[in-house]
Amino acid sequence: MEFIKELNGGFSVIENLKVSGAREGKYGVTIIYSPNSTASAVFTSNKVVAAPVKYTKNVLKKGIISAVFVNSGNANCFTGEQGFKDCETLVGLVSNELDVPKDEIAISSTGVIGREMPIDIISKVANESFSRLGNSPEDSLAAAKAIMTTDTFPKECAVEVTLTNGETVKIAGITKGSGMIAPNMGTMLSFIVTDAVVPADDINKALKKSADISFNMIVVDGDESTNDTCLMMANGSSGIEVVSDGKLDDNFQEALNYVCINLAKKMARDGEGATKFIEANVCGAKNENDAKLAAKSIISSSLFKSAVFGGDPNWGRIVSAIGYSGCDLNPDIVTIAIANEEYDVDLVKDGKILAFENTPNLEIAEKVMQSKNVVVNIDMHLGDGEATAWGCDLTYDYVKINAEYTT
Amino acid sequence: MEFIKELNGGFSVIENLKVSGAREGKYGVTIIYSPNSTASAVFTSNKVVAAPVKYTKNVLKKGIISAVFVNSGNANCFTGEQGFKDCETLVGLVSNELDVPKDEIAISSTGVIGREMPIDIISKVANESFSRLGNSPEDSLAAAKAIMTTDTFPKECAVEVTLTNGETVKIAGITKGSGMIAPNMGTMLSFIVTDAVVPADDINKALKKSADISFNMIVVDGDESTNDTCLMMANGSSGIEVVSDGKLDDNFQEALNYVCINLAKKMARDGEGATKFIEANVCGAKNENDAKLAAKSIISSSLFKSAVFGGDPNWGRIVSAIGYSGCDLNPDIVTIAIANEEYDVDLVKDGKILAFENTPNLEIAEKVMQSKNVVVNIDMHLGDGEATAWGCDLTYDYVKINAEYTT
Repeated sequence: MEFIKELNGGFSVIENLKVSGAREGKYGVTIIYSPNSTASAVFTSNKVVAAPVKYTKNVLKKGIISAVFVNSGNANCFTGEQGFKDCETLVGLVSNELDVPKDEIAISSTGVIGREMPIDIISKVANESFSRLGNSPEDSLAAAKAIMTTDTFPKECAVEVTLTNGETVKIAGITKGSGMIAPNMGTMLSFIVTDAVVPADDINKALKKSADISFNMIVVDGDESTNDTCLMMANGSSGIEVVSDGKLDDNFQEALNYVCINLAKKMARDGEGATKFIEANVCGAKNENDAKLAAKSIISSSLFKSAVFGGDPNWGRIVSAIGYSGCDLNPDIVTIAIANEEYDVDLVKDGKILAFENTPNLEIAEKVMQSKNVVVNIDMHLGDGEATAWGCDLTYDYVKINAEYTT
Repeated sequence: MEFIKELNGGFSVIENLKVSGAREGKYGVTIIYSPNSTASAVFTSNKVVAAPVKYTKNVLKKGIISAVFVNSGNANCFTGEQGFKDCETLVGLVSNELDVPKDEIAISSTGVIGREMPIDIISKVANESFSRLGNSPEDSLAAAKAIMTTDTFPKECAVEVTLTNGETVKIAGITKGSGMIAPNMGTMLSFIVTDAVVPADDINKALKKSADISFNMIVVDGDESTNDTCLMMANGSSGIEVVSDGKLDDNFQEALNYVCINLAKKMARDGEGATKFIEANVCGAKNENDAKLAAKSIISSSLFKSAVFGGDPNWGRIVSAIGYSGCDLNPDIVTIAIANEEYDVDLVKDGKILAFENTPNLEIAEKVMQSKNVVVNIDMHLGDGEATAWGCDLTYDYVKINAEYTT
């Protein structure tokens, strides 16, 4: 889309915004200082909800956020009364340091569940982080790095979007997450800032739309976390309004989708232990919901994920995963293709298997399966429903990482 | 339960029943010859349904089965018209060999999906199997072995049950399954025969009840197969009726539950790559359905399964899995304990964590996690709902087996 231009530098592209990150061992602290921004967020739907999620939900009722405090290493979840006290302690720290009201401070945590926060260490790392607040690309990268847990690379995205009226605004975000990534936002934390002027209610609506086709369409292991948060702030530093007559600019929504999908794909690519990235595109489903069910089921199937790790173009596991997804399916007319940057080959066309032993289709399919990026394209020939989901292969290292994480 | 006595010998405990098994490489054929038996079955709910499942559903409308033909190595699924022709060919073979009507022959397949049946090899192995039909414990074991795919041990169970009126009848069964085991019957095939007299409709009702608390409560990888079949036959050789005034004898239902749970647990224990067996008991749930959701979610969580492999008593992952299961939960009052044959220790009691670092509870918990059998006991303190689910750990070998299965 020519109205969206990807930029380097992460948060540094936004004016009136300072960020920082610091780390000591497994504990990291990221600060986002964005005074007097309108804000909204989407959260985990897990019934076990971390203290900072409850705390931040409450703060967001006002719709104004001036600072976000994020720590990695401890999720502050299943921590009872002490968990809330720790939130208050940390928010007090931020309020003092940055001179912002306590009720404009959001807080987020990621890490081990069910252990009390090591508040001394986190306060110490926080002080280090406060001292580094700045607006350079390096500061943004440090912020993206300090929220990592088992992530293997920091995840940033920034864009400039030309609105339908020709004006331009910017959107930038960071994210973390690689395990416990489930259909409804795994342990992911995402923070997005725009320099546009956007009322909190419109942020909320736009963010829900974007999250539904991005963060909610990635699966690493099907475990949904207790801490998931995607928080978006509009600091208005561009002075440009993107809502007029109650309607959000279409290009702005597209650009937000772009940022969310970009960040979500980076999470899927960095799935714990992953060696390959999987994209499942479903079209021709009875409706959009069916397409989502099918696409997610493919990238969630442990059997298919293992097959991708092993380089096996196993269409039987693909069609079986669609079959138990709950969507409508007629296996006799389905088309299944796989593709990478170089090839695009039908495994099954209109229900007929084309990739039997010793066929050229199977030879090409086996080459595709050796790629780092495997795309599965399904046409169900039943209707207009379309959806895309992203995931990764299931590997020895996923098991290793999670067998060893807390012990 | 003193009215149920477990017996050795599998199918050999039932009179008027002959079974056999033969194998060549990855192809096996099991025959169950049980003339003129009333019968019913429960099948996969996957929308991609193998040809033999469709075929057998149709045959069962009559409610009489005289023989069952089962092959392993190829699932005869996603095989179009040819799949049905192959069913007919094999049923013709059985009809000729055993001189039973074609419409009393059930057929089942397990193995690779989406490849045509190697009908020549299977016919050859079938002939070998026919020549071995017998009623010894060795014949039953051969039948249990010939249906294995990635299973590592054959699975049989036989019981004698004393009915409420003092008479005794027997129930025996075999099963296979270790991958693609999902909440609603993974690639599992189970065949159960009783010498009681039971109308087909009553078999159907009893089998559904038993399957719901046994086969439908095990999860290995969450992938649901296209071929799942649990078929039960009553050959009436004892002459004893277990249904009177339209009501099935309670002890018979209990005994059928026992056989199904015994076979289901053997499947979970033999989950692909498994090194440990997990049992999750949930009590105090709001209702039975909530208890089932919670129990299944625990044994389905890739993160908890990996933790069990690593010997980590990770209550955070347990409570998180309950939290996203969809059941009602108040984390502040939940009790979580783990146990093995020797120990039983609270990790969390009434919402308070008891197994912090350097506590005796954590020391004991770590010992429990080293066992081959890990039992998780949850009390949600919300109601009377109870359920049990069974599974296994997630290991390097699960990935290895499934990365290499077809290539």
